[in-house]
Amino acid sequence: MSLGEFELIGRYFRSMELGNAGGSEHVTLGIGDDAALISMAPDKQLVVSTDTVVLGTHFPPDYIPANLAYRALAAAVSDLAAMGARPLSFTLALTLPEVDETWLQSFAQGLTDAARDHRISLIGGDTTRGPLNINVTVLGEVRPRNVVRRGDAQPGDLLCVGGPLGDGGGGLAVVLGESMPSSVSDAARDYLFQRFWRPLAQCELGLELAGVASAGLDVSDGLIADARHLAEASGVALHIRLADLPCSAALQAWPEAQRMEWMLGGGDDYVLLFTLPVASIRCLEVWASQGFDVTVIGEAVVGSGIWLDDGQELKEKVQPAGYQHFQRKSND
Amino acid sequence: MSLGEFELIGRYFRSMELGNAGGSEHVTLGIGDDAALISMAPDKQLVVSTDTVVLGTHFPPDYIPANLAYRALAAAVSDLAAMGARPLSFTLALTLPEVDETWLQSFAQGLTDAARDHRISLIGGDTTRGPLNINVTVLGEVRPRNVVRRGDAQPGDLLCVGGPLGDGGGGLAVVLGESMPSSVSDAARDYLFQRFWRPLAQCELGLELAGVASAGLDVSDGLIADARHLAEASGVALHIRLADLPCSAALQAWPEAQRMEWMLGGGDDYVLLFTLPVASIRCLEVWASQGFDVTVIGEAVVGSGIWLDDGQELKEKVQPAGYQHFQRKSND
Repeated sequence: MSLGEFELIGRYFRSMELGNAGGSEHVTLGIGDDAALISMAPDKQLVVSTDTVVLGTHFPPDYIPANLAYRALAAAVSDLAAMGARPLSFTLALTLPEVDETWLQSFAQGLTDAARDHRISLIGGDTTRGPLNINVTVLGEVRPRNVVRRGDAQPGDLLCVGGPLGDGGGGLAVVLGESMPSSVSDAARDYLFQRFWRPLAQCELGLELAGVASAGLDVSDGLIADARHLAEASGVALHIRLADLPCSAALQAWPEAQRMEWMLGGGDDYVLLFTLPVASIRCLEVWASQGFDVTVIGEAVVGSGIWLDDGQELKEKVQPAGYQHFQRKSND
Repeated sequence: MSLGEFELIGRYFRSMELGNAGGSEHVTLGIGDDAALISMAPDKQLVVSTDTVVLGTHFPPDYIPANLAYRALAAAVSDLAAMGARPLSFTLALTLPEVDETWLQSFAQGLTDAARDHRISLIGGDTTRGPLNINVTVLGEVRPRNVVRRGDAQPGDLLCVGGPLGDGGGGLAVVLGESMPSSVSDAARDYLFQRFWRPLAQCELGLELAGVASAGLDVSDGLIADARHLAEASGVALHIRLADLPCSAALQAWPEAQRMEWMLGGGDDYVLLFTLPVASIRCLEVWASQGFDVTVIGEAVVGSGIWLDDGQELKEKVQPAGYQHFQRKSND
């Protein structure tokens, strides 16, 4: 890639450095030197996560670059939210087959939108020529005692989700143009399209959970798969009541079997899944009054594995029909 | 990628977390949760840089995965060295076309070697299926007043390099199997092969420069290109004396024109280029006594641009013959 092309790319992304809403007071030195510099408060720990997006079978060729950028950053920030961390800054490593100014303009706009919505600052990056590959590494901060890990759930804790399940799966169906029931309204379709391409990581809820939830993560692989991660890390069983799983109004137009498949295994919901000690049950009221959409969907019990309300244990190797989405994710 | 494949990849990289030499005392929570946690000393700032390697025209198809891994991490760490920062930890985002256990074993070994040699810990990562793409994001720490930036060189400062120039270019010729003079010994070939695939970032020299050098960066694009970055950021001209450029014994077998091309424009040398205030000239003796291989190659003067000792100013658009390597880099 020639120097001229680099300057072009630099122009788009350098302008973002100052343009977004959050974290920038920590940035001592941003894009343009060998590395970026960040100041940390002495009572905070740094939280780091990295996430790659590659075009594969799940993106239609006519995707909008702005949406791709938004989704890549939001998905990475969701890992910070899952730790109870406040987003600070991110780096972008962009591999592009060619320099296309229209594509870059759109991509930079989506990245700017996502950075603003998640209050996080771009601090550096790298641009390489090759097959399209978008890597985002996000940095956040958390007070050490407030970190929400995966491994501290206790039997008796309530299992909660921070928002509707299944929109990621339904959104994918919309984005891929799959056939859908005639009862699906344009508004429902638009909602799911937005939910797929422009998920909002639950950072504010994550900050509320810090120091309160006993364990937590974000639903990216699908409820069952992620609940299994939490159960295994904590050494508990999780009992899930299917009737209590929250879903959006938009999903109601689909038959229950399809809806349930997306809610249990669709993935890409980017809502928080966490356990709450019963002693902190009053938080549910407080969160409701603050506008958070938290639902209790089950509880942690002594044992191992994921159990549904009919007493059926879900085995890793023998999934009930409709769980093929467990295998569809190409990244972690 | 199925869960089984994930576990396979996780196994290789999880074992590295504890196996390397440095930075791990900062890691509160490593691989296996949504994100990693790092503690920072209150008087330090965080330094962050990201670097991508894509297979392109510069790598022979028979590359050794261990070497690719080593080089990817060393090149990223070199940006920390250039800031005067101490390496702490890194994330690895690996995009692979398939899960090949032999490849992974070799890659993980090279990464472990590079992590040990640079005293840096792997703290997290992401694995995705797609065309090969290796992204490393490195984190380091530095005392704020000791940061070595690009923009603070002053007229009168000495221009120095921390090691031999041209080995990156010569090494590339060896790696690509280009024809070479019959006088090139096997030992020289081996040396250059190693220098290309296993460069050692100059972190220890970088720590010495912290608070002493007025400006600095690492030579990754080539001496002239990187000197230009420094000159432009600092608002000075840099005068370079060709006769003083250091090169390895291995390069002596090539004709001077070829050698000079690699020394000025070959890139990938990963030695530090920095300016030293004359008031700190005694550091040169100290560094020599410590075994650092620092050479004064010119000085900063009032003006702009890069000037060679024959009074010729190098223009960006009109390069002398032999500078085509300026354009060959596909990343920054």
